[in-house]
Amino acid sequence: MTGTPVRFEARKTIEQVEEGSDLAPKFDDRGLITVVTTDAESGELLMQGYMNTEALQLTISTGEAHYYSRSRQVLWHKGATSGLVQTVRELRVDDDQDCIWLRVDVSGGASCHVGYRSCFYRKVPVGTDFKDKQAGGQIELEWTDTEKVFDSEEVYGDAPNPTIL
Amino acid sequence: MTGTPVRFEARKTIEQVEEGSDLAPKFDDRGLITVVTTDAESGELLMQGYMNTEALQLTISTGEAHYYSRSRQVLWHKGATSGLVQTVRELRVDDDQDCIWLRVDVSGGASCHVGYRSCFYRKVPVGTDFKDKQAGGQIELEWTDTEKVFDSEEVYGDAPNPTIL
Repeated sequence: MTGTPVRFEARKTIEQVEEGSDLAPKFDDRGLITVVTTDAESGELLMQGYMNTEALQLTISTGEAHYYSRSRQVLWHKGATSGLVQTVRELRVDDDQDCIWLRVDVSGGASCHVGYRSCFYRKVPVGTDFKDKQAGGQIELEWTDTEKVFDSEEVYGDAPNPTIL
Repeated sequence: MTGTPVRFEARKTIEQVEEGSDLAPKFDDRGLITVVTTDAESGELLMQGYMNTEALQLTISTGEAHYYSRSRQVLWHKGATSGLVQTVRELRVDDDQDCIWLRVDVSGGASCHVGYRSCFYRKVPVGTDFKDKQAGGQIELEWTDTEKVFDSEEVYGDAPNPTIL
């Protein structure tokens, strides 16, 4: 890491964590913290991922999103392969500091390995809409985004697909 | 549960999960799926939580957000105590179907047990801002929201605080 390493504080009291100005993130028993990443312009949810200590420190110190890839089990500088780097415009932490919110600008406009702008390109009918459309409880997902921003095979070649069944 | 129960499909192929219209959510080894909840109007991230099978089925069939509370280990109809029900305007699923995105309307305008509108009321300086402000790597969180929407003691009384150190 270049420059001054980012320091995290020990978690001492609920008041300190919820109402204080200490950055005291809670990593789970796998050493990970949940990350939610939205488009700083549109507010759209782009992806949900995880960081380990190093990924969070690097994100803060460099201003570019770093994650921990659970499928590949490595530190993951988003965009290192695809070129689709996420520049962090704002990083927030939640009340109990076990979740990070990144508001980012995405060069190239895509964040999803399938090729869509967002990973969340399908919706589920809910409430009365579910009641109207379901058949025996079965649901058909509906597309909210039908246009792929890039060709995933061209960008990632024969790298293994991160989706696990 | 009232009405037709929601049916989930078995996860058979990556193509089915990523590019198909089957709802085939992946629950982790605790039986939970990650949920990201944003304000349907402002796009602001309100909270990040979890659902078990029943919570996801109820959310879809009723159109009101249900979660699974990890701290209390119970099904949690959001707003049952506080009155701050979340009406789901849109429910999306991500590429590998291990994350749910809820876009909600919040009656009363608050989603955070501390009393703020959003759980994410503090930010961390990043990049050049971090370099300018840090002292020996130490960070001061900055408030993005200083006004509480409700008094948490009044609403929750002496119910145990969900934050775990």
